[in-house]
Amino acid sequence: MTLEPVNLKEKLSKITDHWSPKVIGEMNDYQFKLVKIQGDFVWHEHKETDEVFFVIEGEMMIEFRDGMVSLRKGEMFVVPKGVQHKPYAERECHIMLVEPRGVVNTGEAGGELTAENDKWV
Amino acid sequence: MTLEPVNLKEKLSKITDHWSPKVIGEMNDYQFKLVKIQGDFVWHEHKETDEVFFVIEGEMMIEFRDGMVSLRKGEMFVVPKGVQHKPYAERECHIMLVEPRGVVNTGEAGGELTAENDKWV
Repeated sequence: MTLEPVNLKEKLSKITDHWSPKVIGEMNDYQFKLVKIQGDFVWHEHKETDEVFFVIEGEMMIEFRDGMVSLRKGEMFVVPKGVQHKPYAERECHIMLVEPRGVVNTGEAGGELTAENDKWV
Repeated sequence: MTLEPVNLKEKLSKITDHWSPKVIGEMNDYQFKLVKIQGDFVWHEHKETDEVFFVIEGEMMIEFRDGMVSLRKGEMFVVPKGVQHKPYAERECHIMLVEPRGVVNTGEAGGELTAENDKWV
């Protein structure tokens, strides 16, 4: 056990790309990931798991087939498993995701925004 | 699914006691809890699970048998399962915990600081 705190701002300063989650910590078989987002993501779902979005800086939206939710700094939202969603941020937004190890960012939708898993920052 | 974000500051404003975690969200069989802490907690461990501490406001310390870690706003730390620890905050500190549903705050140590589980705020 390393007695060093994980500083989110310091970790975020090392992330230079968009839509590519970077792992900052693991709890049992779950991962905490930071990601910078901007623009439109793809419609997708995670059939096996809920997914937590937590906004560190900025503002984002999550579109659903029947509505949307707007999240600002200091707000979180749990997307239930199996629910189609599309994240969006007009300006760059910094978020933390919490989900089981192995979850692919685009679910089964695939495409060019699919990020490599288990990349740590 | 309710299309309402969970605002941490708003939830924290409703918490009036210390060392009594309140649930603000669930992801699969895990819970996100907010808790205000001040002073000394008890030495304890969680034999079955890691536990995530995330500081929302203020500063806290986690003592271990062989060292300690200091956490400020925007910093997190994962206490591995089975590791004895004792949280402490000189001044009131607001934190978020992430751990499986059913985890007792004092582990198997018990005592008067043992909080009721599954209390939502």
